[in-house]
Amino acid sequence: MRTIMVIGIGAGDPDQVTVQAVKALRRADVFFVLDKGEVKGELVELREEILRRHRGDRAFRVLRGRDPERDRQAGAYAEAVHDWRRRRADVCAELIDQLGPDETGAFLVWGDPSLYDSTLPILEDVLARPGSSFTIEVIPGVSSVSALAARHRTVLNRVGRPFQVTTGRRLAEEWPDGVDDVVVMLDAHNTFTALDAPDAEIFWGAYLGMPDEILISGPLPEVADDIVSARAEARERKGWIMDTYLIRRHPDTP
Amino acid sequence: MRTIMVIGIGAGDPDQVTVQAVKALRRADVFFVLDKGEVKGELVELREEILRRHRGDRAFRVLRGRDPERDRQAGAYAEAVHDWRRRRADVCAELIDQLGPDETGAFLVWGDPSLYDSTLPILEDVLARPGSSFTIEVIPGVSSVSALAARHRTVLNRVGRPFQVTTGRRLAEEWPDGVDDVVVMLDAHNTFTALDAPDAEIFWGAYLGMPDEILISGPLPEVADDIVSARAEARERKGWIMDTYLIRRHPDTP
Repeated sequence: MRTIMVIGIGAGDPDQVTVQAVKALRRADVFFVLDKGEVKGELVELREEILRRHRGDRAFRVLRGRDPERDRQAGAYAEAVHDWRRRRADVCAELIDQLGPDETGAFLVWGDPSLYDSTLPILEDVLARPGSSFTIEVIPGVSSVSALAARHRTVLNRVGRPFQVTTGRRLAEEWPDGVDDVVVMLDAHNTFTALDAPDAEIFWGAYLGMPDEILISGPLPEVADDIVSARAEARERKGWIMDTYLIRRHPDTP
Repeated sequence: MRTIMVIGIGAGDPDQVTVQAVKALRRADVFFVLDKGEVKGELVELREEILRRHRGDRAFRVLRGRDPERDRQAGAYAEAVHDWRRRRADVCAELIDQLGPDETGAFLVWGDPSLYDSTLPILEDVLARPGSSFTIEVIPGVSSVSALAARHRTVLNRVGRPFQVTTGRRLAEEWPDGVDDVVVMLDAHNTFTALDAPDAEIFWGAYLGMPDEILISGPLPEVADDIVSARAEARERKGWIMDTYLIRRHPDTP
């Protein structure tokens, strides 16, 4: 039986992989990589560093597929993502086809595979296709959300209270009902600057656990501009950014 | 300068500690343990197993404090927790006092220190007291939420949509507004049985990553009774339970 492992490798610090993930990395015969044919980027290098550091000596194959472009102009976000996932699943199905009958392949996922990552839904799509047959194994990882909280030495929830994880796009529509603590992923538009929350505190982090890590926190009205400029400067300098933030309303409520 | 590390050690599988956590475990001179003076429990043994497996040879001291009882009869939940945390902080302050001037102490925390854990807020309380002086360092861990999702091979959010993490107590009041995907922590009362959500799917797990792990998932009306009896049986047999679940409304919405 063929096995496909989805391995969470942490938010960026190569030491943030678990012992379980290291063992899984060593078990894989094949690593699947989707890329856009770009010049070798920093994230690709970081993944290679994780393999160098933790894989050990046994040889492995790398199977590369071309990551399809997502239509970022499309009006309907969810439909555009579903369409993109289907095309990605086509590419993954071809890669998985190249796996030998008893081989084990692995996808490495930044952070944790359960948070805003498409690898698992795509594998379920491939598995549902006629003739597909493999076992899926998931190795959880330290999420960027946990890494963010740790670096700011803070917690996500207050006593007995909920928190929500959402996207920049959703937060732009409204502050979610019933929660004062919100973690925001995938925000390309500095949505925090448009919030009407004068008493809010923000804990922002980019490139968490990497050498270029940036952390900014404080009362939202005081630090929002600093975050906007730090973000723009880093994005310009490096060509890419991975960032996330926790925003907390009514910070005096214990 | 004295350093206090708060180390996330994963949800229960000793291999779910990160390489970063292993390095931190090896750096500690002292491990702080709060216990209720009970007979040595399974969780204490599991923590010792993690130390045995990952600590290496260097000797260490263990400083034990008596964990104060929480008033579980009190009407106001948050106040009772705050009062308990203050008394816990008193105990921790005494333990930290016993740390040498350049020593490093460590608290080991199940899962991730940012989720429904009081260690960090308690240390902030101690640090704010007159004469207190130490550095806090947080090592993130694989949360029980990530472990749950991994074992069920599912994701927490759907495309571009939020999810909420809440408590059994809150869910008993109402289904949270604006989300269809809810992770429930600290539910001692099988709150899922009281929900009016005939189309919901549940992904439940107890003792995640441990030899006694139990996983049950499926349509809520079909599996709710199974979860209730598996939970009661395991709790009775072992004397304690750690469990959590994801509940998903309108599962056909992609």
